[in-house]
Amino acid sequence: MEISELAKRVLSGERRALARAITLVESGRADHREQAAALLDQLNVSGRQAMRIGLSGTPGVGKSTFIEAFGLYLTGQGKRVAVLAVDPSSARTGGSILGDKTRMERLSRDPQAFIRPSPSQTHLGGIARRTREAVALCEAAGFDAVLIETVGVGQSETVVAEISDLFLLLLAPAGGDELQGVKRGIMEMADLILVNKADGDLKAAAARTRSDYAGALRLLRKRPQDPEGFPKALMVSAIEKSGLQAAWEEMMALADWRKDNKFWETRRAEQARYWFAEDVRNALLAQLEAPAARRHMQDLAEAVARGELAPSAGAQKMLDGLRETGAGGAAPIA
Amino acid sequence: MEISELAKRVLSGERRALARAITLVESGRADHREQAAALLDQLNVSGRQAMRIGLSGTPGVGKSTFIEAFGLYLTGQGKRVAVLAVDPSSARTGGSILGDKTRMERLSRDPQAFIRPSPSQTHLGGIARRTREAVALCEAAGFDAVLIETVGVGQSETVVAEISDLFLLLLAPAGGDELQGVKRGIMEMADLILVNKADGDLKAAAARTRSDYAGALRLLRKRPQDPEGFPKALMVSAIEKSGLQAAWEEMMALADWRKDNKFWETRRAEQARYWFAEDVRNALLAQLEAPAARRHMQDLAEAVARGELAPSAGAQKMLDGLRETGAGGAAPIA
Repeated sequence: MEISELAKRVLSGERRALARAITLVESGRADHREQAAALLDQLNVSGRQAMRIGLSGTPGVGKSTFIEAFGLYLTGQGKRVAVLAVDPSSARTGGSILGDKTRMERLSRDPQAFIRPSPSQTHLGGIARRTREAVALCEAAGFDAVLIETVGVGQSETVVAEISDLFLLLLAPAGGDELQGVKRGIMEMADLILVNKADGDLKAAAARTRSDYAGALRLLRKRPQDPEGFPKALMVSAIEKSGLQAAWEEMMALADWRKDNKFWETRRAEQARYWFAEDVRNALLAQLEAPAARRHMQDLAEAVARGELAPSAGAQKMLDGLRETGAGGAAPIA
Repeated sequence: MEISELAKRVLSGERRALARAITLVESGRADHREQAAALLDQLNVSGRQAMRIGLSGTPGVGKSTFIEAFGLYLTGQGKRVAVLAVDPSSARTGGSILGDKTRMERLSRDPQAFIRPSPSQTHLGGIARRTREAVALCEAAGFDAVLIETVGVGQSETVVAEISDLFLLLLAPAGGDELQGVKRGIMEMADLILVNKADGDLKAAAARTRSDYAGALRLLRKRPQDPEGFPKALMVSAIEKSGLQAAWEEMMALADWRKDNKFWETRRAEQARYWFAEDVRNALLAQLEAPAARRHMQDLAEAVARGELAPSAGAQKMLDGLRETGAGGAAPIA
């Protein structure tokens, strides 16, 4: 299929075209990367914006059931919802937090919803780029909300925050009054803290935990991008489907305030600048991955290891080679 | 001075030429970088090898007094000794762990010794490259031992280990039997642990600490590059000048064994490969720092921030511009 045809079908909201477009941006092949860049550039002008909602929470807090319940609430409101994942652990284990769609069985069958597992077998930087481009595709396809899920391994929350408009932290009710070891840096990123499982025997514990976190949030330094009262801590129950509407209303209120006060577009512009710089750096380094460049680099590395060339002189030869062949090919070792 | 003349003087062991050569490799100017690469390449063939000794220890363990005592012991044996430092904290504070030569007053006046403070005002990666090149210059100038000191901030021990043949960890006697919170990763890098201040009232505590660490070292996985009995824990006293000869003899024994068993040259070859790859990556990214490239990148970033270009398309334009102008200059935004 021509890229312009694929772009048209994505814009018309065809799910199969969207899935295919995401597969294209996830590919590491050089020709696919070029096609993906052309596709993204054609779709960039659509002007469509989804609410990009980052969601983090350690295993056991009920992230899947929450996303299923919240996603179904939104589709029930006539919204179209996409769910993506950033899971660097899947690169190591081969597994994926969204690999098994049966985790969100009802949502995955909802025609208004689109679920995509985390791209696998790559490093966090690669996952981040691919996820960000998948978000852009979902926006062009007309989705109203894109949920970006992470399990919070290593730096993944920071990456998700760099892709999102809003960042939610999902927690389970705590036994005591301790703050579950949530790192300060994660707390400071959160726009809403949602204490899940506020149902049955855990309801009282959830209320206590919510109150503890509300107190902790008040102790943080006020952020310019927040209206009075934010960030907030709320209770939700994915099982009883309670608190979902309140949570959504808070997200909308926060989004509206930020749009009115220019913080929304400023954040998006900053994120675009950040990812542009990341893309430039990654593209420069990717020149070293071309087969001819790898061979040249290997030959020079051996000469350096044998002591025939200083490391800096070898690096200079490598760069000269890349410049001469233009597209990252190899020059013979002079 | 011509680079070939500077190279000749460094090879003849002139201290002023060495100091000047180190200033050259520490410079960030593009023309200086080219001259430095030429100089290093001319000196690379000297075939001279010093024993490169990495030394880490937190503030308070007596690093300066140890280096002074150990350095004077070595010069007393007829050896020429250079002392370099890797101190990423000096980039932030403007200070330097070796900025004040009065810390090692006697050694700094010894004609067989050469002391150079940490390069300042740059990031750890830059300090590492400059220090490594300074090590190469000291070797070419005929020094027998190069001590590379670090305070162990962040990743600096790993960097120093990637520059050194041997890695020493200096500790102070501990009050109780706790292991002073030394990270396992640092323990695993150490070839020798030296418990300093084994004198006066602290002698008994030093013996206990040495014994604790000897036990801890035995619990680590055996490394192929170690003969039986290594890594070892020893006691030294910089004040009483005791244990210095024993420590030097252990270093010599370890070095000889590694040379006989090919581990010495294998490690140097691996390090050269590693630094070559680092140099290539840094040189690629340095293209973005040229004034014309910075301006072009800034213009593209603004277009991306305004939504006129997708980040990936902007990155593609930036790369095309770098390729067209060859040396990292800017092409007009098409």
